[in-house]
Amino acid sequence: MGKISPFAPKRLAELPPIEGVRIATAAAGIRYPGRIDLLFALFDSGTSVAGVLTKSKTASAPVDWCRQHLAHGMARALVVNSGNANAFTGRRGREAVERTVEAAARAADCLEADVYVASTGVIGEPLDTTKFTGLLGDLAREAKPEAFEQAARAIMTTDTYPKLATRKTEIDGVEITINGIAKGAGMIAPDMATMLASLFTDAHIEPSALRASLDPAVDETFNAITIDGDTSTSDTFLIFATGRAIARGAPLIAHGDDPRLAMFRFALHEVMRDLALQIVKDGEGLTKFVTVKVQGAESKEAARRIAKSIANSPLVKTAIAGEDPNWGRIVAAVGKAGEAADRDRLAIWLGDILVAKNGEVAAGYREKDGANYMKRPEIAITVDVGVGKGSGTVWTCDLTKDYIAINADYRS
Amino acid sequence: MGKISPFAPKRLAELPPIEGVRIATAAAGIRYPGRIDLLFALFDSGTSVAGVLTKSKTASAPVDWCRQHLAHGMARALVVNSGNANAFTGRRGREAVERTVEAAARAADCLEADVYVASTGVIGEPLDTTKFTGLLGDLAREAKPEAFEQAARAIMTTDTYPKLATRKTEIDGVEITINGIAKGAGMIAPDMATMLASLFTDAHIEPSALRASLDPAVDETFNAITIDGDTSTSDTFLIFATGRAIARGAPLIAHGDDPRLAMFRFALHEVMRDLALQIVKDGEGLTKFVTVKVQGAESKEAARRIAKSIANSPLVKTAIAGEDPNWGRIVAAVGKAGEAADRDRLAIWLGDILVAKNGEVAAGYREKDGANYMKRPEIAITVDVGVGKGSGTVWTCDLTKDYIAINADYRS
Repeated sequence: MGKISPFAPKRLAELPPIEGVRIATAAAGIRYPGRIDLLFALFDSGTSVAGVLTKSKTASAPVDWCRQHLAHGMARALVVNSGNANAFTGRRGREAVERTVEAAARAADCLEADVYVASTGVIGEPLDTTKFTGLLGDLAREAKPEAFEQAARAIMTTDTYPKLATRKTEIDGVEITINGIAKGAGMIAPDMATMLASLFTDAHIEPSALRASLDPAVDETFNAITIDGDTSTSDTFLIFATGRAIARGAPLIAHGDDPRLAMFRFALHEVMRDLALQIVKDGEGLTKFVTVKVQGAESKEAARRIAKSIANSPLVKTAIAGEDPNWGRIVAAVGKAGEAADRDRLAIWLGDILVAKNGEVAAGYREKDGANYMKRPEIAITVDVGVGKGSGTVWTCDLTKDYIAINADYRS
Repeated sequence: MGKISPFAPKRLAELPPIEGVRIATAAAGIRYPGRIDLLFALFDSGTSVAGVLTKSKTASAPVDWCRQHLAHGMARALVVNSGNANAFTGRRGREAVERTVEAAARAADCLEADVYVASTGVIGEPLDTTKFTGLLGDLAREAKPEAFEQAARAIMTTDTYPKLATRKTEIDGVEITINGIAKGAGMIAPDMATMLASLFTDAHIEPSALRASLDPAVDETFNAITIDGDTSTSDTFLIFATGRAIARGAPLIAHGDDPRLAMFRFALHEVMRDLALQIVKDGEGLTKFVTVKVQGAESKEAARRIAKSIANSPLVKTAIAGEDPNWGRIVAAVGKAGEAADRDRLAIWLGDILVAKNGEVAAGYREKDGANYMKRPEIAITVDVGVGKGSGTVWTCDLTKDYIAINADYRS
C-alpha cells in the first residue's frame, strides 16, 4: 500500500449536498488507530431505498440484514464501517449488527428496520461494536450535508483514493442530483462487484421503481468490472432517494417504466459507470487499465462471459503487465469461456491495430506495432468471435508483482 | 525459468521399456537452438489408442486432427513438438499438421490416419515443419525402447523437470506395464488440465474399452489440478496400448466393464495421479503445494467445484504465498462457487487444526498455530460445507511474484 494508483483522478469530484441527506464520519479505531473508518448517513423521513447485494453463499451478517429490510424499501440511516467485514462471524456477527442498528436507530430517532448497514475489511474476526456505537449520538448531531468526500474516505480499505461521482439530471423538468461513493481495490469480481457503493439522490421515487432502474445498470457497470475474479461476502450497492425534490415540483415516480425516468436512468448509469471504472483504476498493484470488448457473440450475456474469461485470465493479465502483445493468450481465454465462438472467423484488435483475422495472424500485422501499443497505460482489446450479434464490454487491470505483495501481506 | 521447483523429485522415475513402443527425440530448433524439442514414438501394428482432448472452443490444429482420428482408435506413431503450439494458425496450421503426418507416416511406414500429433508452446505463430519433417526418417531408424526420459524432456516448455511415472500391474494374472510422461507448468486449469500427457502400455485392450477406463480417472487426476485456472488450446491426453502382452498370455479386453480390468484401472489411475501431481508441483513460480479437500457438499461434482473455487482464488493463493492463515478468504471462495453451502455449519481445517466451525472461528483456534502451519511447504485445506455427503479433492499451488515474472516475460 502507500503507492497511489497511477490512474487516480487528478482532482476529486466535488459532490454537492443532496437535500435530505446528512453525513458524519469518525475514526473509531476499528482496525487502525487514527484512521477514519466509520460513516453514519442520516436521511429525512420518506426516503426510499433499493439495492443489489452479493450472491455469495457465505454473505456477511450486514448483507443478511440489508436483504431482509430492503423488502420494505424505506430508510432513515446508513452505518458503514471499514476495517472489519463482520463476515463469517456467526451468532456474534448477527448480534453485532443488532447492536449497531439499535444504536443507530436511537441516534437517528427512527425504527431499527429503517437502518441499513455495511461492513468491509477482514473476514472471520468478531466486530467490536463498542468501539463505535457510543459515537453515533454525537455523529447524528454533527452530521452535515457537504461531507461526501469524508464519507468516501471512511469506507476505504486498500483503496489508494476515495471514489466519488456526481451528475445533475432532471425528472419532468425538475433538477435532480445523484451523488455516489464507492470502495473497491481487492476482491472485485464477476458477481456484484463493488465491495461497497452508496448512491444518494433527491428524486422522489418509490422503492419498487427505484429497484427496477438498477438491474440493467448494475450489469453494465459494477458487474462488468473485474480485478481478480474474486467475489466478496460483503458486496453491497444501495441507493437512497430522499424525495426532497418534491418541494421544487418533482413528481412522485411510482413505476419503473415511467417514461419520465429516462434521463434519470441515464444519469444513474453514468454515476455507476464512473464509480465502477474508478474501482478498476484503483485495482491492487495495477499498472494498466484494460477495456475488453467482445462482439459477434451469440448474445450480450455470452459476449460479457467471453470478455470476463479474457479479463480474468492470469496469463492475459500478466502478459499485459509485461507489455507483451501475446494475443495467443487471448485466443486461449476465448476458447475456455464455454460460449460459442468460431475459431476460424475470430478477429482480434489491440486498439485500432488488427492483429488477427479469420483465425490466424492478420497479413499486415507487425509484432513491433503490437509491442508499441502495449506500452500505453490504457489498453483496449477487441475480439470478434464471429457467430452472432451480441456484444459486451468488461473493464479490468493487469496482474502485477505488487498485487501479490499487497495480498500476501494484507493482514500483517 | 532457470530456478528448479522446490518440489522437483529427488530422483526421476526410471521407466522400463514397453514392448511394442520405440522412441526417438531430436533438437530440431523449433524455437530455441540446441534444445530437445521433438518426440517421435513408433508403435507396433495392432496398437489401440484412446484420448481426452481440450474442450477449448479455440482448439489447436493438432487437437482437431487427434479428435478426428481417435474415432477409429488405432495408432502407429506419435509426433510431439514443443516450442510452438500450432494453435490459431488457420489454414497454415492444418497444412502443418498434414505435412507432419505425411512425413511421419512415410517414416513409420503406416497410414496417415494412424499418426497422432501434439504441439505445445507459443500460440498464433505458424509452425515451420521443414525444421523437423526431414528428421523423421532417421529418427524412425534409431528409435529405441528405453528412451522415456528423453521423451519427457522433449515435450517440456517452462517445466523445470521432466514428468515420468510407471506402474506394474496385471490383467488376468499376466504382468502389464504402464508408463507415462507429461508436461505442464503454465496454463493448467479446470478443464482437461495436462498441457500434454502420453501413456504407454503393453496391455491388449480394444479402443472402446480403453476409452471407457479414462473418464473417471481423468476427472480425479488431470481435471482435479489447477495452477492458474487457464485452460489451454492444446491439452491432449493419449494412451497407447500395444497389446504385446498377448505373447505372454494376456487376454484381449473388449469391454470397459470387464472385471479383469480392475487392477489395471487402479494402476492407470495411479500413473495419472502421479503425473498430475508432478505437474502441479512444477507450477510456475510456486513455493507451496496445496491440497484442497471439500466434504459435506451436495455431490462430488459440487465438492470439486467448490474446491476449485478455493484453489483458483487469487486471494487464497496469494495468502498462501505469504504464509498467512487468512481463512476468511477461503470462506469467500466457498461463497462465490455457486454451489450449496451452509454458511452457519461451515467448518475449516488447516492440516489437523480446526480453524472454524459452525460458521465462526473455532473456540480453541489460535492464530499462532495457523501461522506456524502455513510455514510448511505442503499445505492441506479441508472444508466441510455442511449440506450433504459429496466430497472431492483438488491440488494446486500458491501464486507468487515469480509466476508474474515468468508469464510477463515468456515471449521475450
